[in-house]
Amino acid sequence: MRRFAADRAKRLLFRSLFSSAATPSAPFSSSPAAAAAAAIDSAARSVTVDTINPKVLKCEYVVRGEIVSHAQRLQLELQTKPGCHPFEEILYCNIGNPQSLGQQPVTFFREVLALCDHPSLLDQSETHALFSADAVERAWKILDAIPGRATGAYSHSQGIKGLRDAIAAGIAERDGFPANPDDIFLTDGASPAVHTMMQLLIRSEKDGILCPIPQYPLYSASIALHGGSLVPYYLDESTGWGLEISELKKQLEDARSKGITVRALVVINPGNPTGQVLAEENQKDIVDFCKNEGLVLLADEVYQENIYVEDKKFNSFKKIARSMGYDDAHLSLVSFQSVSKGYYGECGKRGGYMEVTGFNAEVREQIYKVASVNLCSNISGQILASLVMNPPKVGDESYESFDAEKSGILSSLARRAKALEDAFNSLEGVTCNKAEGAMYLFPRLHLPSKAIEAAKAVDAVPDAFYARRLLDATGIVVVPGSGFGQVPGTWHIRCTILPQEDKIPDIISRLGAFHESFMEEFCD
Amino acid sequence: MRRFAADRAKRLLFRSLFSSAATPSAPFSSSPAAAAAAAIDSAARSVTVDTINPKVLKCEYVVRGEIVSHAQRLQLELQTKPGCHPFEEILYCNIGNPQSLGQQPVTFFREVLALCDHPSLLDQSETHALFSADAVERAWKILDAIPGRATGAYSHSQGIKGLRDAIAAGIAERDGFPANPDDIFLTDGASPAVHTMMQLLIRSEKDGILCPIPQYPLYSASIALHGGSLVPYYLDESTGWGLEISELKKQLEDARSKGITVRALVVINPGNPTGQVLAEENQKDIVDFCKNEGLVLLADEVYQENIYVEDKKFNSFKKIARSMGYDDAHLSLVSFQSVSKGYYGECGKRGGYMEVTGFNAEVREQIYKVASVNLCSNISGQILASLVMNPPKVGDESYESFDAEKSGILSSLARRAKALEDAFNSLEGVTCNKAEGAMYLFPRLHLPSKAIEAAKAVDAVPDAFYARRLLDATGIVVVPGSGFGQVPGTWHIRCTILPQEDKIPDIISRLGAFHESFMEEFCD
Repeated sequence: MRRFAADRAKRLLFRSLFSSAATPSAPFSSSPAAAAAAAIDSAARSVTVDTINPKVLKCEYVVRGEIVSHAQRLQLELQTKPGCHPFEEILYCNIGNPQSLGQQPVTFFREVLALCDHPSLLDQSETHALFSADAVERAWKILDAIPGRATGAYSHSQGIKGLRDAIAAGIAERDGFPANPDDIFLTDGASPAVHTMMQLLIRSEKDGILCPIPQYPLYSASIALHGGSLVPYYLDESTGWGLEISELKKQLEDARSKGITVRALVVINPGNPTGQVLAEENQKDIVDFCKNEGLVLLADEVYQENIYVEDKKFNSFKKIARSMGYDDAHLSLVSFQSVSKGYYGECGKRGGYMEVTGFNAEVREQIYKVASVNLCSNISGQILASLVMNPPKVGDESYESFDAEKSGILSSLARRAKALEDAFNSLEGVTCNKAEGAMYLFPRLHLPSKAIEAAKAVDAVPDAFYARRLLDATGIVVVPGSGFGQVPGTWHIRCTILPQEDKIPDIISRLGAFHESFMEEFCD
Repeated sequence: MRRFAADRAKRLLFRSLFSSAATPSAPFSSSPAAAAAAAIDSAARSVTVDTINPKVLKCEYVVRGEIVSHAQRLQLELQTKPGCHPFEEILYCNIGNPQSLGQQPVTFFREVLALCDHPSLLDQSETHALFSADAVERAWKILDAIPGRATGAYSHSQGIKGLRDAIAAGIAERDGFPANPDDIFLTDGASPAVHTMMQLLIRSEKDGILCPIPQYPLYSASIALHGGSLVPYYLDESTGWGLEISELKKQLEDARSKGITVRALVVINPGNPTGQVLAEENQKDIVDFCKNEGLVLLADEVYQENIYVEDKKFNSFKKIARSMGYDDAHLSLVSFQSVSKGYYGECGKRGGYMEVTGFNAEVREQIYKVASVNLCSNISGQILASLVMNPPKVGDESYESFDAEKSGILSSLARRAKALEDAFNSLEGVTCNKAEGAMYLFPRLHLPSKAIEAAKAVDAVPDAFYARRLLDATGIVVVPGSGFGQVPGTWHIRCTILPQEDKIPDIISRLGAFHESFMEEFCD
């Protein structure tokens, strides 16, 4: 199955989930009807879907695509006509957005942010009744690291030096190898960092980026926006989404034989949407592969705190490379981290960084220049990035409550992952690998041929058809696997493990009832 | 003078300020020596300046370019060897970053931000001693507008609906014409919004964007990064940086005759770096020009609160268009606003929005999709954008202190603008138009030919040579006019009006002494 040509897979990957026949108002379609409507408009104005940048048209981001627009419509209907659907609320399991589903922010982090936002609090006696002593102390330390204590000023293009120092220290403590604050570029979440690297590396469609399939669609979207070629490598579902070097080599050679210059390899560890955690030996092979083939290793490590199984642990690719004796001279490596994931889940703060190692000074200056055009990332996000990489330690006043919040969230996520994994595996024709880490399950749907035919009849991709039916029946929003890429002929959905624990039994029961009725309707 | 060919002007615009001969370690250069160093590196790795995206290489952003890197080096030297330079501190007049130079944030805004960052404060009795009642009330209102009160969740891709409602209401109140919250896209400052529009409109180098010369180099950088052509139109220095429709027409026709499809017109009002405020009649002509020629009007209105002269006022282009009876069917118009400027100057918060009107539903969906790929802008920035468009009103508890802070900042900026304008005009061979608005003066330097020769001898652009000498002698950082574009053969510098008022006399005196000695050294 995995021998399908790369371009076939790419066509499938970028294909709209629903054509205009199924949903005339579907966003992102460019049907003949839409083109006609556009032609009428162009009489008045020059900007139509036919005259905009085709790279924008080509880009897809299914995590917030048609299924979510439909869910938003249903939610509006529920508000205006309560009882009009067979469910009372929409459950957004489409996106890794923990706090939208009730996860509470970590108190210490928010205390420090509030104090840095309104530093005059630090001079007030009442403040000590409201904030922990170490939050006050940390806020002072952060303010002292900011020139003029000005949290409202643009910072250095890479971020405030003192915060980068704290992050580098956190990385060094995590890895046992030194980190350089000058290698840190603070960003508004991980997404802009990924865009920056794609912008740097991609010259034309002849430049390729090796990406896992399934992948997080930020990568396919960013490659499309920057006009490059996604070179897929398939994760092996039968071995728990294993990443095989032979597959990397095969796809690299295949791309090269087509005249593609492969510039980088994207690895998402822990995996999104697939949830696997790479073994150390596997990571070493990946590092060697990149080193030997002259590829930049783009390591998406935003789920580094999200590990739910005893026998796996997170190793950064930088730690692996350094432990092999490789330094800047051997490997170009970019590690992406975000405040949106982990136990913190601070998606709305848009904080993150990339650690950029193994590029020469001239290229680094180009990255610095691109960062400078956007001035700097938001200071609250910068502060938060320094906090997640340097949280309270044993002995700090906040440590016990902080640790209770952290381990409460992580252990609950582990229980939810297991419960949902078991639930999916209990369904007829569904198989689901373990979520060793990250925030998602990616069960495979072995759909009856009648369901596939029914999907085709409304010009829908089968897993999108299933996801739409699931939403309409239960209010549960999942993302069709086709938005992430999958071995052609296989169908999946991505479902987050993020609903609060007390909702899980109801979700499982609704899911089971829907699935049973779906399979009954379409049984062969 | 203004008849120089467009491509000549563009070459000058994108040219490095200093070649490698003058500063071997200069960032952003691509000298033969640098190329050789890169070739050595490429043996080990595949990424060099010769193999990265040439659009990245081409892009320049002088506001944080070589002159600032040099200033940072001097600052470090001052820290390690006090007294090693003829000044005690570096004065960053290169960038509109008010709080870095001591401007204090507006108290009400920061109160609300702190409360939203740490909402549990709202339940504590001590909070009422620390925060104004209307800040507490506003924080509740904002939290109630956020689904689940989750300030740590990704929001809707365009930003939180309730905040967009507040912004639309603020626009409607400002303009006297309705605004639609669905037209608002909240962004991390104005820069990402500009990139989004350039990304949408530019297909290739055959697509052009009409930009003022001088311009804020975000525009040239963004056009370069997206692979389009900057079509310059010259502002007329002799009429206070007047914007003449005849010039727009001439440059549009010239570009079209070269096969360029001009897609949009950028207007910065109040002007950056030029400080002029457009008259209403002029704006009407611009609107008609865009309407008749089918151009998108990209209105950079981030300095809308920064007006320092009695006889001018800010009119948004949307208000002008609506007052002419033009609606969505007549004109595609995008207005950019930011929390970084005005009296608030909250650069580090990275808040802003674009109001997108006059695009059809399909194109709007494409803009929404691109916004979705980046998930959302940071929530604190979103909140702040809603606050600056809906600040305390007469009768609110905070109103008097808020108004005192606001008018204190704006009146001080007006005095500083006038004092620096007069100072520049008092210098031999320097003429300086009034800063009617924005945050900059853009004096013209009539340099002696010996100074121009001396600059050429070190392969430097003459105004960059002057700026570098000024920095080395006084610690004052200004940006060479060549980074903004200027009529070929004329030389300028951009200097912000942002140093605190008590520093202005010293700046003026240092500037005067330096200039006198410079003119003496190079007198013809």
